[in-house]
Amino acid sequence: MSFFFSNFFNKKNSAPVAKDRLQILLAHERSATSNQSDSDLIQKLQKEIMAVIQKHITIDQEKIQIKVDKGSACSTLEIDIEVPQQYK
Amino acid sequence: MSFFFSNFFNKKNSAPVAKDRLQILLAHERSATSNQSDSDLIQKLQKEIMAVIQKHITIDQEKIQIKVDKGSACSTLEIDIEVPQQYK
Repeated sequence: MSFFFSNFFNKKNSAPVAKDRLQILLAHERSATSNQSDSDLIQKLQKEIMAVIQKHITIDQEKIQIKVDKGSACSTLEIDIEVPQQYK
Repeated sequence: MSFFFSNFFNKKNSAPVAKDRLQILLAHERSATSNQSDSDLIQKLQKEIMAVIQKHITIDQEKIQIKVDKGSACSTLEIDIEVPQQYK
């Protein structure tokens, strides 16, 4: 797995969360025979998944962190959202 | 972070993928003051995120692995999909 996930894993010993959080990680691993023109699947999904989440949660745009890493063999997306106590 | 993510991290040194794969990980971490009745956010999102993915990928139901772990403080969802070479 990618450096992305190893980075994420390093958070495992952090203190308990003070606020509710929703974290979403997507990884698209492509084989050597993959069609490289399909490498933007993650980016296609990002917008639509955010729309799905916003159906359930009123998101403060300042409380979202998005990281995208588009590599030749593996593209990753990390979304970290501070969730309000009251959902929609 | 949860055992779930540490498990995922352990795959990082595996051999390169033979097939394209899409992996989605969701974690909902709840604080001590969180409303426990909201603990099913992950399950609400699962169905809708799968629908988003199926707009872009023709998924063979036999090529999907879904794992749900509903804990008192952290609920997680892992979706692992073998992606066909040709998207929609």
